Amino acid sequence: MQKYWYDNENRIAVSSRIRLARNLDKTAFPNKLNKEDTAAICKKTGDVLTAREYSFGKLHYIDMDEFSQNVPSLFERHIISPEFANNYHGKGLLLSDDESISIMLCEEDHIRIQSISPGDDLQSAYKKAKEVDDVLCNNIRVAFSDELGFLTACPSNLGTGLRASVMLHLPLSESQGRIPALSAELSKIGLTIRGTYGEGSKGFGSFYQVSNQITLGITEENAIKNLNGIVKQIIISEENLRKEAYKPVLEDKIFRALGTLKYARRVNSAEMIKLLSLIKLGTDMGIIKNKSKNSIYSLIINTQPNTLMLNAKNNYTPGERDILRGDILREKLKEVE
Amino acid sequence: MQKYWYDNENRIAVSSRIRLARNLDKTAFPNKLNKEDTAAICKKTGDVLTAREYSFGKLHYIDMDEFSQNVPSLFERHIISPEFANNYHGKGLLLSDDESISIMLCEEDHIRIQSISPGDDLQSAYKKAKEVDDVLCNNIRVAFSDELGFLTACPSNLGTGLRASVMLHLPLSESQGRIPALSAELSKIGLTIRGTYGEGSKGFGSFYQVSNQITLGITEENAIKNLNGIVKQIIISEENLRKEAYKPVLEDKIFRALGTLKYARRVNSAEMIKLLSLIKLGTDMGIIKNKSKNSIYSLIINTQPNTLMLNAKNNYTPGERDILRGDILREKLKEVE
Repeated sequence: MQKYWYDNENRIAVSSRIRLARNLDKTAFPNKLNKEDTAAICKKTGDVLTAREYSFGKLHYIDMDEFSQNVPSLFERHIISPEFANNYHGKGLLLSDDESISIMLCEEDHIRIQSISPGDDLQSAYKKAKEVDDVLCNNIRVAFSDELGFLTACPSNLGTGLRASVMLHLPLSESQGRIPALSAELSKIGLTIRGTYGEGSKGFGSFYQVSNQITLGITEENAIKNLNGIVKQIIISEENLRKEAYKPVLEDKIFRALGTLKYARRVNSAEMIKLLSLIKLGTDMGIIKNKSKNSIYSLIINTQPNTLMLNAKNNYTPGERDILRGDILREKLKEVE
Repeated sequence: MQKYWYDNENRIAVSSRIRLARNLDKTAFPNKLNKEDTAAICKKTGDVLTAREYSFGKLHYIDMDEFSQNVPSLFERHIISPEFANNYHGKGLLLSDDESISIMLCEEDHIRIQSISPGDDLQSAYKKAKEVDDVLCNNIRVAFSDELGFLTACPSNLGTGLRASVMLHLPLSESQGRIPALSAELSKIGLTIRGTYGEGSKGFGSFYQVSNQITLGITEENAIKNLNGIVKQIIISEENLRKEAYKPVLEDKIFRALGTLKYARRVNSAEMIKLLSLIKLGTDMGIIKNKSKNSIYSLIINTQPNTLMLNAKNNYTPGERDILRGDILREKLKEVE
């Protein structure tokens, strides 16, 4: 069976992501293009990038209009951006078999290379993205200025066009109220932290994305190095809070989450994320044991509303989904004790 | 092992209770008595009532001062009243081995015979109480007026001196908001309903006591018959609500309660009653199966704070109790699935 980045359990740092924004030289940005030009650019870049084998396998061209019923799930699996999910008509997506490389064509920029690696491993994600970027730049004239670097639709991406981010599971940092101060500190050094699930600074399930903001006047390597250093500090601080935590209360919360999902008949998404986050904390801290072959984070991915329906090959009302989600979680958590 | 009234699972009607208030003739009521007179009355009635064998076995005399550390648990097990628990010095209690008959001496009245039977069975409770009452009235001159009946310290008990009550488990009637209307109706016909646990009309765990209020101008038999008829109606109405209930939502609540208590590490009394009430509803409705030899209601009795400590032969802080309660419930609920 195909393994995905979320199939291994990764403690605190769930995944590392690199995004490179690139544009064709002397070509209007996507929001100014008509249907024909959009199709032409998708075809041209698609042809170049699917023509060869990479270290991670081949890239496959997906015509988004033919794939439209999978769009919400692609978003839930972090393969496409919310903007692309809302505006994909006439556009293309390039995807590797393991879903670790995805390239949105004619999103905000002509080409958005996205690479994801499990755990705290921006280097490997960057390496894969660079592999694609090199093929792209060697075969297509890309918009680049010696003074500014890569030219992008939005000035916030000018320069490296690189956004690096690490998804961190920070339940203790969150429950101790550390996130607002961390957020303020990070913004001073050109980084941001935001919840992975839900709106605002407080994320459902204590999953947070820490990313770089600065793309101008910095090399890609330095941007990644800076983020890496800070991420390591945040991880150490979360580890220390876990060591210092008053175990009995924490264990009670974790076991209650497990008992609830082992028995509940209807579970909505928000509760699923909240309780699986506690169960992940429990397995990561050795309080409970996951003897199954599924990582806890893969349960979060696979029981999101649209991915759930895609896996079940059926459409459901929210109420029916909650029942199905309850069934799946009870079954999958049998070997977690 | 000794079996108690709560060792069998009783659907909806948990227990039936009879209380008879009696006083010695030409003797001041207990609140006017000095220490010596109180002791003398306790001894006199104690000697008479412990001297013989009843259908339910013997009655044992308990000097409350020697038994003081058991007092809070006696109250939790419905053996003594809250008033007696707060003011027991120099007084006596008569108790049968199965705890189904208890007689408080010098509570509000000189003699308060209390009889309890499992389930919806006021007749058997009354029969046992009458057995004691007959011995009492045949051996001791009891305060009685041909016009009024039995004389009691409080006029509300004058006449029969009888209070009959049935403890009912009414989770559906409660969740459908039926209790306030029921309460209003009952008060019109001289009955009351109140929560067994907690204050006010809304009881923790949906356990309610329905009792008669009228003691004057009515025979004991008629008072019991009236209550019996009404109780049967309330039971039918609860049964119907259970049949009509939307099962999926109810099942989810019941299984969540079970999952929580099977896994939680710390459980306070209020939560214990609330969740065991749902589990009892689940076993009574056949949604879950209790394969253990413990009734669910016996778990409520045995994990009350003071009964818990009495069983464990130790004193604990509330926090320690919550841990011990969690341990016991996890263990006892292993065979509930």
